[in-house]
Amino acid sequence: MPQVSIERIEQDVTALSQFGFNEEDRGVYRPGFSEADMAARQWLRDRFGELGMEHWMDGAGNVAGRFGPSGKPAILIGSHLDSVPAGGIFDGVLGVVAGLEVVRAMQDAGIAPDYPIEVIGTSEEEGRFGGMLGAQAMTGHLTAEWLDTAKDEHGYSLKDAMEAAGLEPHGALRAYRRPEEIRAFLELHVEQGPVLDAEKTTIGVVEGISGVFKWNCRLIGKADHAGTAPMAMRSDALMGMVDFAHEIQRIIDEEGTDKSRITIGHVACKPGFPHTVPGEVDFTIVGRDLDEEIMHGLANACRRVLSAIARKHKLKFEYEQMSWLKPANCDPRIIALIEAKAAALGYSYKLMPSGAGHDVQFFCDHAPAGMLFVPSVGGVSHAPDEWTHWSDCERGVQLLLECVMELACEKVPA
Amino acid sequence: MPQVSIERIEQDVTALSQFGFNEEDRGVYRPGFSEADMAARQWLRDRFGELGMEHWMDGAGNVAGRFGPSGKPAILIGSHLDSVPAGGIFDGVLGVVAGLEVVRAMQDAGIAPDYPIEVIGTSEEEGRFGGMLGAQAMTGHLTAEWLDTAKDEHGYSLKDAMEAAGLEPHGALRAYRRPEEIRAFLELHVEQGPVLDAEKTTIGVVEGISGVFKWNCRLIGKADHAGTAPMAMRSDALMGMVDFAHEIQRIIDEEGTDKSRITIGHVACKPGFPHTVPGEVDFTIVGRDLDEEIMHGLANACRRVLSAIARKHKLKFEYEQMSWLKPANCDPRIIALIEAKAAALGYSYKLMPSGAGHDVQFFCDHAPAGMLFVPSVGGVSHAPDEWTHWSDCERGVQLLLECVMELACEKVPA
Repeated sequence: MPQVSIERIEQDVTALSQFGFNEEDRGVYRPGFSEADMAARQWLRDRFGELGMEHWMDGAGNVAGRFGPSGKPAILIGSHLDSVPAGGIFDGVLGVVAGLEVVRAMQDAGIAPDYPIEVIGTSEEEGRFGGMLGAQAMTGHLTAEWLDTAKDEHGYSLKDAMEAAGLEPHGALRAYRRPEEIRAFLELHVEQGPVLDAEKTTIGVVEGISGVFKWNCRLIGKADHAGTAPMAMRSDALMGMVDFAHEIQRIIDEEGTDKSRITIGHVACKPGFPHTVPGEVDFTIVGRDLDEEIMHGLANACRRVLSAIARKHKLKFEYEQMSWLKPANCDPRIIALIEAKAAALGYSYKLMPSGAGHDVQFFCDHAPAGMLFVPSVGGVSHAPDEWTHWSDCERGVQLLLECVMELACEKVPA
Repeated sequence: MPQVSIERIEQDVTALSQFGFNEEDRGVYRPGFSEADMAARQWLRDRFGELGMEHWMDGAGNVAGRFGPSGKPAILIGSHLDSVPAGGIFDGVLGVVAGLEVVRAMQDAGIAPDYPIEVIGTSEEEGRFGGMLGAQAMTGHLTAEWLDTAKDEHGYSLKDAMEAAGLEPHGALRAYRRPEEIRAFLELHVEQGPVLDAEKTTIGVVEGISGVFKWNCRLIGKADHAGTAPMAMRSDALMGMVDFAHEIQRIIDEEGTDKSRITIGHVACKPGFPHTVPGEVDFTIVGRDLDEEIMHGLANACRRVLSAIARKHKLKFEYEQMSWLKPANCDPRIIALIEAKAAALGYSYKLMPSGAGHDVQFFCDHAPAGMLFVPSVGGVSHAPDEWTHWSDCERGVQLLLECVMELACEKVPA
């Protein structure tokens, strides 16, 4: 069985971290289609070239390198090369470098796969333009209209950004890969959460990407003088929100699972003066679970509880559902494969959902897809102090390699 | 017994409402020392003149008219002539007009009081410059330093405002009235709260002005991705605030009285993004009671509960006490007098605290002071739709008259 080299992984991650690195805050600035992002893509193509891999950039800016025979469905190993502003060095990059290292380790061991392996650095996963452009393009989740109208938060259009990077925007529609061409899609990623680190577990075997709903809620009561209005005569909108928030854990206990999340991230009182009983409160609810039925259960419970509280507090309750994204489930056979290989390697592992979005989610209804997590120290991500121990990177890539071997080779060496 | 005239009261309140009246929002704009405010003061002096009363403006801008003998301690009937922006027509004005009407009714009945009665339109009660200038000046709660430095919210200085109104700022220090000159201070005011209207009670006999403390609080946890951080692994600062707010009623039940109020009027989450667990929450606590010992009990309980919640949620709790104003208690003999007269008149009445500040609070530790409330429809005040039924105004002024008669005349007619 070939073995991955942690020296080469560390070298590649470090090399990629230089594209868009900011000395001041030690963060990576590599937004989709920026100069730094395009330079990182060229770096990846150079590596593919060194390994003798056929390589290309598709119309969406995804960079791919192929190892193995043509004319057969491929095992895709992919993650993204772009970063959030002030991001860390592992997010996305580790999954691309892992693909490179899988190919190198197989080449070192003289293994010729029976199915081709494609290593892919996807484009614009971090949502600068509000989507996951590269993965959407490959799986047919893209429209010409969106390509024509998407803008970043500064109002700069996707079209202009793609043209500045030498890409013809509608070319992204031609990046589509038919399901028959894909034997599997595998993504290795840092967890970006605290679970594996806290539980001292080496590998997260991702069951799927949690579905998520987002509500903008408003409770309307009556603003009153905080001195003259007795407690019992108030219609305090904030206290309505408080009563709801206090029921969140009960709602999850009754309707949810250990994979459920309900979060209030934003609250604003009106008028927001210390001496005035809040007459109105705006707040957000973001709910998640891996099972859409459970998401419906959570959403219904939130609505029921808020309605009851509104009646009790003499408040008016309004909400708008801003988004409802279905869960994306990984392929049970891929999950079982990752579990079996992790167990064989003696790695501790845990089945878990991904609460964050990833490229893999667009492949889930398109091809057999699977995802592996390695621990994020302290759960930190999207920040310069994101960190994953090199030893954990090594185990993750070795496990990925053994899964790929199983999928790519008719006969896998013991 | 003389009887007040509701026609004259309505006429005067309506006349004063014209000073600073805005046709667009139907609100009164009469900030302290504005042209409208000074014109209202001249109007009041003209009325004093018509009634043959000696009248003057003191160095703080308070306008006073005297009826009855000199050389004896006076019964002061006072409230303010200034308004908040977009205020109502009764706030302050009703208490001044009430004083005028008390004098007129006594004159009509041919009553010559044994003690002088002074009707006072106080200055700058609404706190444009952060205090209650007129009442503070009369009772010695004023410093030269404050007069020199106070500014309104637009940065316009009190000194400039007073000079523009023809007043020499340090002259306010000479407005002081010695306790020996004051037999009583009485203020009639609209409740500015919902209690009397909701309970269909005619008169509020004010026990005192609630003391009030204001805290700026901060809970610090850890901002996390709302998808990747399991509920049990979060240090959600907002949920700490929620747990505290949920205990407020219990804190009042255990430590407070039916006069206690605890209000959270302002909340701000950081970073305040829907998809991020709040790492920090800033909020205000404003607590009130009529008894300073109880205020201490409430404050200590808030601190204990917040500290315990912080420990439980792995949060850091910080707070800063921005202010602590002691309660001001009305004189028990004045309270008993108002009660007795209300009962004799057959008016329904209720002993109650004032949660809002009033001129009377500075007289409480200076002379025998008392206050009467009449109902505010729906509890509305500081708004154009502030309203008190004329019949309620009439009863309030008649009650005030009978109290004044008792204090001013050696022999009161039955």
